[in-house]
Amino acid sequence: MIGQDKNQLLSELMELLGQDHVSIKEDTLEAFSHDETEDLTYLPQVVAFPRHTEDVSAIMKLASKHQVPVTPSAARTGLAGGAIPVKGGIALSMKHLNRILDIDQDNSQAIVEPGVINQVFQEACMALGLMYPPDPSSWGTSTMGGNVATNAGGPRAVKYGVTAAYILNLEVVLPNGDIIWTGANTLKNSTGYNLTQLFVGSEGTLGVVTKIVCRLIPQPRHRFTLLAPFASAEAACAAVSKVFQAGITPSGMEFMEIDAITWAAKYVKVDNLPLGDGVEAHLLMEVDGLDEEAVMKEAEALAAVVESHGALDVLFAQSHKEREALWKLRRAVGEAVKSHSVYKEEDTVVPRAKLPELLQTVKSIGKAYGFQSVCYGHAGDGNLHVNIIKGDMSDADWHGNKLKQGIRELFQEVVAMGGTLSGEHGIGLVQKDYLDIAFSKTVMQLQQGIKGLLDPLNIMNPGKIFPEA
Amino acid sequence: MIGQDKNQLLSELMELLGQDHVSIKEDTLEAFSHDETEDLTYLPQVVAFPRHTEDVSAIMKLASKHQVPVTPSAARTGLAGGAIPVKGGIALSMKHLNRILDIDQDNSQAIVEPGVINQVFQEACMALGLMYPPDPSSWGTSTMGGNVATNAGGPRAVKYGVTAAYILNLEVVLPNGDIIWTGANTLKNSTGYNLTQLFVGSEGTLGVVTKIVCRLIPQPRHRFTLLAPFASAEAACAAVSKVFQAGITPSGMEFMEIDAITWAAKYVKVDNLPLGDGVEAHLLMEVDGLDEEAVMKEAEALAAVVESHGALDVLFAQSHKEREALWKLRRAVGEAVKSHSVYKEEDTVVPRAKLPELLQTVKSIGKAYGFQSVCYGHAGDGNLHVNIIKGDMSDADWHGNKLKQGIRELFQEVVAMGGTLSGEHGIGLVQKDYLDIAFSKTVMQLQQGIKGLLDPLNIMNPGKIFPEA
Repeated sequence: MIGQDKNQLLSELMELLGQDHVSIKEDTLEAFSHDETEDLTYLPQVVAFPRHTEDVSAIMKLASKHQVPVTPSAARTGLAGGAIPVKGGIALSMKHLNRILDIDQDNSQAIVEPGVINQVFQEACMALGLMYPPDPSSWGTSTMGGNVATNAGGPRAVKYGVTAAYILNLEVVLPNGDIIWTGANTLKNSTGYNLTQLFVGSEGTLGVVTKIVCRLIPQPRHRFTLLAPFASAEAACAAVSKVFQAGITPSGMEFMEIDAITWAAKYVKVDNLPLGDGVEAHLLMEVDGLDEEAVMKEAEALAAVVESHGALDVLFAQSHKEREALWKLRRAVGEAVKSHSVYKEEDTVVPRAKLPELLQTVKSIGKAYGFQSVCYGHAGDGNLHVNIIKGDMSDADWHGNKLKQGIRELFQEVVAMGGTLSGEHGIGLVQKDYLDIAFSKTVMQLQQGIKGLLDPLNIMNPGKIFPEA
Repeated sequence: MIGQDKNQLLSELMELLGQDHVSIKEDTLEAFSHDETEDLTYLPQVVAFPRHTEDVSAIMKLASKHQVPVTPSAARTGLAGGAIPVKGGIALSMKHLNRILDIDQDNSQAIVEPGVINQVFQEACMALGLMYPPDPSSWGTSTMGGNVATNAGGPRAVKYGVTAAYILNLEVVLPNGDIIWTGANTLKNSTGYNLTQLFVGSEGTLGVVTKIVCRLIPQPRHRFTLLAPFASAEAACAAVSKVFQAGITPSGMEFMEIDAITWAAKYVKVDNLPLGDGVEAHLLMEVDGLDEEAVMKEAEALAAVVESHGALDVLFAQSHKEREALWKLRRAVGEAVKSHSVYKEEDTVVPRAKLPELLQTVKSIGKAYGFQSVCYGHAGDGNLHVNIIKGDMSDADWHGNKLKQGIRELFQEVVAMGGTLSGEHGIGLVQKDYLDIAFSKTVMQLQQGIKGLLDPLNIMNPGKIFPEA
């Protein structure tokens, strides 16, 4: 998109959306050139701000006509570069499609636009006694559209499931501008192929989600939050599957290596945090439910299991304030690790009983390749965020093949354990060169065939997910 | 497949599988010519009995070479004709792939072959304190492969979700014989497009599922079963959404019109069944959980809600035996309705608060078109099985356009309510002519595009789901 073509497209976009909803200002282009992923900047040539599904449809028709890339984005909190316009073209800001269109208490369903912030939606549901469970750490800023695009998880996924489990139906604008509904507003659906789940987690590469129908559940009335320090990080990982084997299903089961929690504690004050010598890791756990006594019993059973599997102590949050402080601390870990050092984050996921083996593998690969790491994440789901810390690694090794080779070896081990590359962040830009580890040639062709079927011109968030030849 | 070609294929099949695993005997062909759907018989030309994934792969390669249709089947309990070889060719019996390969207690996961009977698998899980929740009424005979193919539900889906919610990964033989794994053995996965959920519910039209990785949950320890008669069927339907609005999530919420339960009671003896004058319908309900007191409280709350919304009475099952009798009665309804009259069954599903409107619509369309109906089903999911009874309708009207027009009108109303054609049976053969009601032209093309991408020769269970030109 250069020269005359660009001017032509620009004037058509302005005619379509009005001058206030198209921008080529430098600071706007810059704002849309990155997300929360480390080290990436790719400028779009123009940013468009649609307000309705019809705007999105018209933009996609224009983009098809001019064969210009379109990259949907909103809060740009992604951790895999999924919303970055790596091929330039149009950055499509969904921020004005931010209405909660309906919360239907009779059916425990809601319809929202993609630009609605997760926390805003959650609070609207809570006010009606309902819960939308997916709660990524970015819930205060990330949007429902981005959550759908990455199939976002969060701490509660271990009991309630990830975003996919709550999406019943989607309105999607296809790359050619056609508007479809993917399914029906029903809890069950055996009518044709599951297009809804094809779009969930597709990272904006198959179409633009413009309306989201989700199911809601009753808000739990009681919860208990527990923090357990361990002398051994591996023991903490090993305790995780013991909890589930005891028939307990916590609503949160988070693992943090000591560095993660120590660094986060600089930003979030929590009283009496057990950070003493000889502590290598913590499990932050929660149970919830409708019946206070039953939840209390479950909390006690949970405490007993982790105590008999290596926990040095189990601290119960004594108040709403204490509980919120612990979760605030947990949510601050990502930011804290980022601020501490040059890093790269991998979103590994394995069957949960493989967690100790995964942790061991991370450390031994680190030793072999000369990097340190800080791990934390949704241990109950086997989802470990591995933050590789540059530390003493030379710039040449860090930016060159050595680190890449180390990460490749890590993913090979993860896949050998029955795991895969990403549990909740998506593949986006930064993991795509490792996709051959998770996918056989046949699967890769099939996945790319689906992309080609929906987006024959390759204008829909191109350059993502799949390695380029 | 006729003449020389057929003989050639036959001898190649026999060489491949051994003579004992290929059949052209009349009674075997006849057995594979129908399922539990009313009025359908289409003979295959040969039945093949693979024993391993590799057998299935070799068969698909042969079928591709000869361009012969292949229709996977196992228990043939389907209710939409999905496993019937409507285009002849090879009926692929999956019954010998019936091993439970692993129940992994450390990870709460299992790997099974598609020919494993649902109940056999459930009981193996239960023996280890684990639960595989999907429980179609056919659970005693239907297989895991068929359950995946139709995305089967059952009474417990209202609390625990349908088959899709438990499938983590699938081994699939593609129409060209290639063998793939669709995902990973993890609880979360944001790695590329969700092929697993593309195959779940695809009714054997995209490939042959040969291994199923599913997640398991802890077996609930306590349950209470309740039966509530209502003077008005519509009031019973209306009570359903009131239960969920009260924050209660029953593990069963079944609706039965009085004829359904009365006919079933001829086959299954239950003491003190409230079938008196003035009863128009029943709700059969269950709550379950790990804590006995909490479950009891939930049962009491549930009883209170339905009593305040029109239940004439609420009977608690007093023993395991009574509870089992009630569920046996419920499972017998389908068979009983079938035995009573010439019928056609529709698997409508709507948002649950629309149930009263759906029931009213069924009855008023019946009045207009001259048919009677008996309705029952998984009311908590908004999934109503509508059994259209021939009764006084003339043969000409029954087999001709009049009934078809009535069903079409019913589905149009269902879709207008936010619902769709099938909640758990699939589209198969019998609903495909109505698919245009649920799908826009664009969605139809997209769905058929996916079929064409995976099965370019159209040999994989052809003639299903999509209307033929």
